[in-house]
Amino acid sequence: MIVVMKSGSDDAAVQRMVSRIESMGLKAHVIVGIERTVVAAIGEKRNGERQTLESCEEVEKVVPILAPYKVASREAKPEPTTVQALDLKIGGGSIGVIAGPCSVESEEQILSSAAEVKAAGAKGLRGGAFKPRTSPYSFQGLKEEGLKLLAAARDATGLAVVTEVMTPHHVELVSRYADVLQIGARNMQNYHLLQAVGETGKIVLLKRGPCATMDEFLLAAEYVLDQGNQQVVLCERGIRTFETHTRFTLPLATVPYLKERTHLPIVVDPSHGTGIASLVPPMCAAAIAAGADGLIVEVHPDPSNAMSDGAQSLTPDAFAQAMDLSRKVAVALGYEM
Amino acid sequence: MIVVMKSGSDDAAVQRMVSRIESMGLKAHVIVGIERTVVAAIGEKRNGERQTLESCEEVEKVVPILAPYKVASREAKPEPTTVQALDLKIGGGSIGVIAGPCSVESEEQILSSAAEVKAAGAKGLRGGAFKPRTSPYSFQGLKEEGLKLLAAARDATGLAVVTEVMTPHHVELVSRYADVLQIGARNMQNYHLLQAVGETGKIVLLKRGPCATMDEFLLAAEYVLDQGNQQVVLCERGIRTFETHTRFTLPLATVPYLKERTHLPIVVDPSHGTGIASLVPPMCAAAIAAGADGLIVEVHPDPSNAMSDGAQSLTPDAFAQAMDLSRKVAVALGYEM
Amino acid sequence: MIVVMKSGSDDAAVQRMVSRIESMGLKAHVIVGIERTVVAAIGEKRNGERQTLESCEEVEKVVPILAPYKVASREAKPEPTTVQALDLKIGGGSIGVIAGPCSVESEEQILSSAAEVKAAGAKGLRGGAFKPRTSPYSFQGLKEEGLKLLAAARDATGLAVVTEVMTPHHVELVSRYADVLQIGARNMQNYHLLQAVGETGKIVLLKRGPCATMDEFLLAAEYVLDQGNQQVVLCERGIRTFETHTRFTLPLATVPYLKERTHLPIVVDPSHGTGIASLVPPMCAAAIAAGADGLIVEVHPDPSNAMSDGAQSLTPDAFAQAMDLSRKVAVALGYEM
Amino acid sequence: MIVVMKSGSDDAAVQRMVSRIESMGLKAHVIVGIERTVVAAIGEKRNGERQTLESCEEVEKVVPILAPYKVASREAKPEPTTVQALDLKIGGGSIGVIAGPCSVESEEQILSSAAEVKAAGAKGLRGGAFKPRTSPYSFQGLKEEGLKLLAAARDATGLAVVTEVMTPHHVELVSRYADVLQIGARNMQNYHLLQAVGETGKIVLLKRGPCATMDEFLLAAEYVLDQGNQQVVLCERGIRTFETHTRFTLPLATVPYLKERTHLPIVVDPSHGTGIASLVPPMCAAAIAAGADGLIVEVHPDPSNAMSDGAQSLTPDAFAQAMDLSRKVAVALGYEM
Repeated sequence: MIVVMKSGSDDAAVQRMVSRIESMGLKAHVIVGIERTVVAAIGEKRNGERQTLESCEEVEKVVPILAPYKVASREAKPEPTTVQALDLKIGGGSIGVIAGPCSVESEEQILSSAAEVKAAGAKGLRGGAFKPRTSPYSFQGLKEEGLKLLAAARDATGLAVVTEVMTPHHVELVSRYADVLQIGARNMQNYHLLQAVGETGKIVLLKRGPCATMDEFLLAAEYVLDQGNQQVVLCERGIRTFETHTRFTLPLATVPYLKERTHLPIVVDPSHGTGIASLVPPMCAAAIAAGADGLIVEVHPDPSNAMSDGAQSLTPDAFAQAMDLSRKVAVALGYEM
Repeated sequence: MIVVMKSGSDDAAVQRMVSRIESMGLKAHVIVGIERTVVAAIGEKRNGERQTLESCEEVEKVVPILAPYKVASREAKPEPTTVQALDLKIGGGSIGVIAGPCSVESEEQILSSAAEVKAAGAKGLRGGAFKPRTSPYSFQGLKEEGLKLLAAARDATGLAVVTEVMTPHHVELVSRYADVLQIGARNMQNYHLLQAVGETGKIVLLKRGPCATMDEFLLAAEYVLDQGNQQVVLCERGIRTFETHTRFTLPLATVPYLKERTHLPIVVDPSHGTGIASLVPPMCAAAIAAGADGLIVEVHPDPSNAMSDGAQSLTPDAFAQAMDLSRKVAVALGYEM
Repeated sequence: MIVVMKSGSDDAAVQRMVSRIESMGLKAHVIVGIERTVVAAIGEKRNGERQTLESCEEVEKVVPILAPYKVASREAKPEPTTVQALDLKIGGGSIGVIAGPCSVESEEQILSSAAEVKAAGAKGLRGGAFKPRTSPYSFQGLKEEGLKLLAAARDATGLAVVTEVMTPHHVELVSRYADVLQIGARNMQNYHLLQAVGETGKIVLLKRGPCATMDEFLLAAEYVLDQGNQQVVLCERGIRTFETHTRFTLPLATVPYLKERTHLPIVVDPSHGTGIASLVPPMCAAAIAAGADGLIVEVHPDPSNAMSDGAQSLTPDAFAQAMDLSRKVAVALGYEM
Repeated sequence: MIVVMKSGSDDAAVQRMVSRIESMGLKAHVIVGIERTVVAAIGEKRNGERQTLESCEEVEKVVPILAPYKVASREAKPEPTTVQALDLKIGGGSIGVIAGPCSVESEEQILSSAAEVKAAGAKGLRGGAFKPRTSPYSFQGLKEEGLKLLAAARDATGLAVVTEVMTPHHVELVSRYADVLQIGARNMQNYHLLQAVGETGKIVLLKRGPCATMDEFLLAAEYVLDQGNQQVVLCERGIRTFETHTRFTLPLATVPYLKERTHLPIVVDPSHGTGIASLVPPMCAAAIAAGADGLIVEVHPDPSNAMSDGAQSLTPDAFAQAMDLSRKVAVALGYEM
């Protein structure tokens, strides 16, 4: 941690900072520059010392040297983490594709979706039973009935079930039916929920919040890892920016950036990331070219009658084309898909 | 709702859209323009018809005419809502000021904070007992012990207690001690939590999420209102933008904008909104000039030893000056403070 | 154009709006809804009528139906535009790669850069002679001397020269040496400059401004097209968002989005788009998978001694690897590169 | 400047960095931490050394200690700069208000605007003669004829004329008529233009670009100051964020932030900052409460017939009310207005 003292700080101020740093159990090292004095604090423990020092009056700014996350970092575990649920393998050169409707709507809808996405090559089935909706007046999901339908679709197809859990007291229920627990973007910093899924042995698919930084994203993963659950998959699903021609902005540089810093696998959600069905196939291919370990894609047998997210859902045909495009890129780059 | 058909849509496509709209119980009205045909759908019910139509192939875009929120709107209730807890009055020309430390740290800290902010004119005491922290390694709050200390501070000073509740199963516990339940920015779209506080009779202080739009903010309030709890106070606390010289960007135009659209009172949090103590006093005054019904300000007896948010906490002296500045503006504009 | 009247507008207000619209030479069409009345204005000419009507007191909002750009649109010209300078072909299935240093620094540097990027497969040579620098104290470029060195590099290698022009009175000078005139992101809305390059017969590479919307970007292109110069290449180079781990956020969905709306070719700049050399190769491959018609990449023989943009410049070896990766994707998807 | 070496950098790498820093004429100071080694470079000259070092392979990041601007900083000149043109005084406790239409449209329009804004207390007259318009099909201004009308309005009222100059070769012409040269937001980084206005003796009103950081804004001012022109007024006019309910987001914390760092006066433009006339008066008052040295406000005798920016223009009556509100705040806080 580097503490930059304000211009004009005198020796006494610098000495106070040194004592302060030492009282925190760190070693202080003073560097007198021409216009500023800085004090390096050695032994930084990544747990909030920065904020404390920043509030001292003589301090201009405090610059952390270490990343704030630990267990998620490549330094802690250099080899990549891979996860597997039934035939869905994510990471380590295997690209896992999860597809299905935004919401589970009926038995027929989910069974036909499952059959279609399986035929095109998906290994995981997505579908919301508990739906976080911006408006209280929108369809909120079929709840446990939806979970049962997902399980039935798994029985019929062998696809792994990926579905969202919204609140800690549903974790036990959802875990009974799901192979992968999804934490939605709105809940990325719902810490009680993160701890609750961390206590299960289930794979957790953690979506990036639409205004989360990389540090916040990895620290959210750290809440799960810290409970002893090492099976976390990160999901880039787009961020909120000034752009309005797409629903969110999908920043694919997240993929190689995270791969340098964390051992956790990363999948991309081009459906939420763009919000427009016609943009999804090229962004699937681009995600794989960027190095993604998987995709999660909204597919609906009849998007124009979907109860949610119709505008960004692919028809089964369009999904098959997206898979074809993506597979060409995967093969060219030596990935298994 | 206005459905804009794609360029080149033929009569059959337009007719399909008309049938579609009518099957939703709406009236369709076709307008043939020079380059585009649009179909107006009359009778819009604000509950998701838009998404459905947007996914139809021949549709270029769908433009909603009505705002998606109802109960929160000025149209539903033209007169402003006011809330009161002990001497803390917010709305209807009364500016209520809530102040105190980020976290409750000790009996001495919270009692001295309470005495100081009361002396300067605050009527509410803020202080976190359950703390949502970005890192699992940071101080997470004193929990129930913190709530007891807040209640003790209320007993000693008469200040109303404002504190955060983070998860549905804590609502009952926190309600036993708090006068106002705060929903933090990270939880603005934690719908189970919103419903749970909606079921209490407590005043709810709802913080805007850092990337929430106005519609999302008002719809989050609507989740509370929809449970029958009409006592919701909106809080602008800054949004995430490309600016890095402040912790967040504080968009004060939120205040007059919301006042035109909703009857709910609105308070401003310049501490989180800027993240820098020296910017807080002018932004307090500016918030009041913009029409805010209240302020929520972080004050700590010794910011450089605070366990969280020290950099943005005012000393008691600085808070007294901020209050003085704010009161001058309030008086000049005819508000009670 | 759809004019949404404020709630409670009476017949007289609606009638005033109808007259207003008719006085603009448009046809008005009134639709009385349950909560709002809207007036459709038929015959919209894309030139500012919207702003005028929005300022009328009884108007809640005005929704344009048509995109504001004309000549750039696919409706105006369905077949894709392709450009060619020497062997650099961009568009129509040909992926053109432009590479080279941020700034021209010396004869040796630009000649060796040119030889290296040509060997790896680039067909265009980039290099700044006039440099727009954030600080007046930074290196501002070799100016005409730099242009001469670029021309010498073209003579030696056959690469097409792509270089920036910053101000209208340099257009004639830069045109004498360059094959492609680059308009930098900071100048995307420098309208006199756009008009000046529009008056030349040169290919124009127009970079997206870091906070430009798609409409603004295409309207900037329209300033060039409007002067009769049809050879405009659009360049996505990243936008400014809250993300700080990369220099800018590179939104690759721009590529398929623009391809649906405009006939102009689009290239991607992953060097500025990420600002980090190690992220450039995967983002090159991703750009091609997303459908880009070309790449523009910073390559320097010795990045750690570059006079500008070293952190995002590839070494010649890294560039060769990026090309290899990109070519695999291009071949798999059937592009010529 | 603090150079953070990558984890695992060996002594040789550190030694190479030390030599590198010394070869730049700086002093190097090595600090060996537990997980990272950092090298402090003493003698930083604010001119690009950072970028150079950041591109070295063993470097994780480089943290600058000094702000990149010099002449604009409070350290260079502690006392505030004030400017005056006729009766328009900005800075040093005087709040200067500039008002008028977006564009000069006709003699009658500009003369009546001038009379009205003067009556309400403005001391400067704004009005565009050369208009930078997003679309080439929009009204581009009356050009020199507009400048003549502005001069006539000054003759009639004594108001100082503030008008935009868009390109270097117009500087001489516009300077003949204007008292204050405005640089528009789109041109904040048009460096040739900044240098050209820096060469005049005129006051320069420099608008912040909608995605400019504080450092970029002050460095743009530095381009003007560096030519010897010390009369620069900074103008916050709103930034581009994800918010769509206002045209831009107006971050008033810019005002106290800049006042801590620069001696230059700062004015606020709530018209562009919000884009909605009804939000302008409260934001005028808020800007003054935040410490602004002036306001620039769009006022039109008949906004619904304005040729540009009607939606954000105040009527003369609304402007008089905004002035009244603002004056109350100014008086309460001890400013002259």
